[in-house]
Amino acid sequence: MHKGTQALVQDFYELTMAQGYFDSTLKDDVAVFDLFFREVPDEGGYVVSAGLFSVIEYLQNLRFDEDDLAYLKKKGVFSEAFLEYLRDFRFRGNVYALAEGTIVFPYEPILSVKANIIEAQLIESFLLLSINHQSLIATKGSRVKRAARGRKVMEFGTRRAHGPDASVLGARAAYIGGVDGTSSVKTDQLYGVPALGTMAHSWVQMFDDEYASFKRYCEVFPHQSTLLVDTYDVLKSGVPNAIKAIKEVLLPKGIDRYAVRIDSGDLAYLSKQARKMLDEAGLENCRIVVSNSLDEHTIDELLDQEAKIDAFGVGERLITAKSNPVLGGVYKLVSVFRDGKEIPKIKVSENPDKITTPAFKQIYRIYDLDNDMAIADLITLRDETIDESKPLTIFDPLHTWKQKTLENFYVRPLLNLVIEDGNIVDKPASLEDTRQHAKEDLARFWEEIKRFEVPHPYYVDLSEKLWKLKDKMLKENTN
Amino acid sequence: MHKGTQALVQDFYELTMAQGYFDSTLKDDVAVFDLFFREVPDEGGYVVSAGLFSVIEYLQNLRFDEDDLAYLKKKGVFSEAFLEYLRDFRFRGNVYALAEGTIVFPYEPILSVKANIIEAQLIESFLLLSINHQSLIATKGSRVKRAARGRKVMEFGTRRAHGPDASVLGARAAYIGGVDGTSSVKTDQLYGVPALGTMAHSWVQMFDDEYASFKRYCEVFPHQSTLLVDTYDVLKSGVPNAIKAIKEVLLPKGIDRYAVRIDSGDLAYLSKQARKMLDEAGLENCRIVVSNSLDEHTIDELLDQEAKIDAFGVGERLITAKSNPVLGGVYKLVSVFRDGKEIPKIKVSENPDKITTPAFKQIYRIYDLDNDMAIADLITLRDETIDESKPLTIFDPLHTWKQKTLENFYVRPLLNLVIEDGNIVDKPASLEDTRQHAKEDLARFWEEIKRFEVPHPYYVDLSEKLWKLKDKMLKENTN
Repeated sequence: MHKGTQALVQDFYELTMAQGYFDSTLKDDVAVFDLFFREVPDEGGYVVSAGLFSVIEYLQNLRFDEDDLAYLKKKGVFSEAFLEYLRDFRFRGNVYALAEGTIVFPYEPILSVKANIIEAQLIESFLLLSINHQSLIATKGSRVKRAARGRKVMEFGTRRAHGPDASVLGARAAYIGGVDGTSSVKTDQLYGVPALGTMAHSWVQMFDDEYASFKRYCEVFPHQSTLLVDTYDVLKSGVPNAIKAIKEVLLPKGIDRYAVRIDSGDLAYLSKQARKMLDEAGLENCRIVVSNSLDEHTIDELLDQEAKIDAFGVGERLITAKSNPVLGGVYKLVSVFRDGKEIPKIKVSENPDKITTPAFKQIYRIYDLDNDMAIADLITLRDETIDESKPLTIFDPLHTWKQKTLENFYVRPLLNLVIEDGNIVDKPASLEDTRQHAKEDLARFWEEIKRFEVPHPYYVDLSEKLWKLKDKMLKENTN
Repeated sequence: MHKGTQALVQDFYELTMAQGYFDSTLKDDVAVFDLFFREVPDEGGYVVSAGLFSVIEYLQNLRFDEDDLAYLKKKGVFSEAFLEYLRDFRFRGNVYALAEGTIVFPYEPILSVKANIIEAQLIESFLLLSINHQSLIATKGSRVKRAARGRKVMEFGTRRAHGPDASVLGARAAYIGGVDGTSSVKTDQLYGVPALGTMAHSWVQMFDDEYASFKRYCEVFPHQSTLLVDTYDVLKSGVPNAIKAIKEVLLPKGIDRYAVRIDSGDLAYLSKQARKMLDEAGLENCRIVVSNSLDEHTIDELLDQEAKIDAFGVGERLITAKSNPVLGGVYKLVSVFRDGKEIPKIKVSENPDKITTPAFKQIYRIYDLDNDMAIADLITLRDETIDESKPLTIFDPLHTWKQKTLENFYVRPLLNLVIEDGNIVDKPASLEDTRQHAKEDLARFWEEIKRFEVPHPYYVDLSEKLWKLKDKMLKENTN
């Protein structure tokens, strides 16, 4: 874990640009930056947004200390006046954000920052790395949990995480996504994500024989006995020894919660055989936990093969989102307020995917009044409102002839002011509430949006006003 | 970044096992754990070891504070006596490790811990996550740097890293692997990895036109001008405006170091065209930097296509090791010392890859006296020595008839005692020396070991004594 403040957790160009703005007439401009991504990882249908809590914590505590200033001074490219400015630096701007756990789609701002240009620029990297990382893992957690079809999923990836923060913050994000607990003790301590664990092979190896190791574990932790049965041979030795230890130590105490864990081999076959042996021994209560390079696809296949599994421990493929370890969120300037007047900004590109949508925005999620299911999202100018009593026509921003007129709907604005003039005005929900929100939010999307293979794209349209502004600016910029 | 001590950055099972040992006769056993991996990421030929510095820092500072103890107490499964033990906990064992930056191969211990079983167990996850993460990124950095064929490579991935630690520690690791600098300011501040940066598209967008933005940047940072030329149109607008600004602001000051950066589009084509335009304008000095989803393969292909590129900025695919974001290091019990006597331990498995090699070990790297190139590594019992004056016969541990007798060689032991009885006895090298060590170490392996496609496996053999021990234990365990 690195030392000192977080102020220098940023890209060097933020500081050089900040110095540049500081020395120019742009110094007092207010900028709006949108943080959004262009593609859902794993070709999935949705992203579970996460990381806002880190953003808020960071912005509230953002200070350059004397070590930071001394380091910057030594670089020899920053002016004394600018360093003095940094000494008193506080984030005094506004942040508009989706509640953590909200389902979000490509090109929708997960958050917008409206702040003095220097302040808005200096926070770019930290905001990106927090939202990118945590949304990535929350999304993966959601996929893994859905694959488990109601069974428990434990996050077990600490040892393969990209550093200590990734283990702790990743486990928290996975929990938001729907995972039921973690092996990460620090995540339990800091955020209350239930931590639990079993044993390592080393425990079994330390004893003269496997049975002695199981017996001892049951004696020490009678109420948390999950016995790892694959150190030598799952079916010949592990399961029989577990049965013996459970019968000898736990049953006489009236304990009826215990489990075995299989961490290698053919998990479908071994779990079925183990189930049979446990049942024949009268241990129908004994749960079977499996682990070993699991992700949403292996879990799905195991369950298709009717593996007898009660819970999954998911490690490296969740904590690193191994199959697609990057959520490519970007932070783009979309507007400048100069003397109170908004000047929308656009970035054009030969690659249409990289063209930005200008202006300070709101997102409205439109729900069907009959069934409360989400129909589409509409991105609008910030001050637009939607009259729910009148029919609403939305259209595809690319193929504008594709139109749809909605009636019998209601809308929910998604980007809420959470920090105003540098102060928290909307206290983040508890982690439990955030997780519940993610669950309920996801439940209001149709299955075709959420399926693993070729999900149906959810409609994210622009309001007519916003579309016209973008179209006009594009034409001006490319002529 | 998480708060408090690092003591609880671990898997819950370490604590339950520790409590279990604490309450048993095993309490005073000394254990040896090897930390090793089984597969090189990206099907590569070698790994650059990194992360030892984090391990040392962690072990030196490892304490459970009152918050940690209060949390553990609340869990209700740990005894008062055990919590008291944790209150006074210090790591008092030995660590034997490869110098950071050393080239390492599958099944070789990157480090071995010899310590009281409880101490050795409680540090498992932190050691794994540090070595796994940092070795992964150092290795990726090495691959990317080699692909660049002597050109500069900058690490630009902060915004896509898995949290703040991953950005800071990852940039440090990439530097060990051979990358030349980073955009991560914190990594420069803490570890002295040279940080530099250019500008974002937002800088260009803030001004009324592109030329004004370039001119201003050259005025503010005349000695660090790298102008981002793809905000509007690289060849029609970006490069011409850069030429104009450089000629107007920098040349009159006699400055001859400046660059343009291209961040999108066909980098091969655009760089060649830009080179032509710059040369025709008399700016032969102007370097061309490119970025945008680069890794070793895209860099290799760009250079095959004779792209005119002087430096590469490599982001998400390096900082996350995107194509293979996991180094699967494990931490396995290999020996127990009870009353001073060594009892080697083995873990058998139906999967031969998962069988461990028992006993406390040393690794010898064998070099050819004629050319100083590495021939093979020999893993031995810890107290074995190799007589360099006599022929040495090594053999493949699987196909034992494959033998080779070496003469005219010398050996270097790789696993050095770095922490003894909890104290540093071998101070880690500076980061510069570590990077230099990695470079020199890598240079002493033949190209066929290092190539990207189907590298030739480097020989890692067991000494006859160690092989016999393993063979005997395997036969005992599987009968």
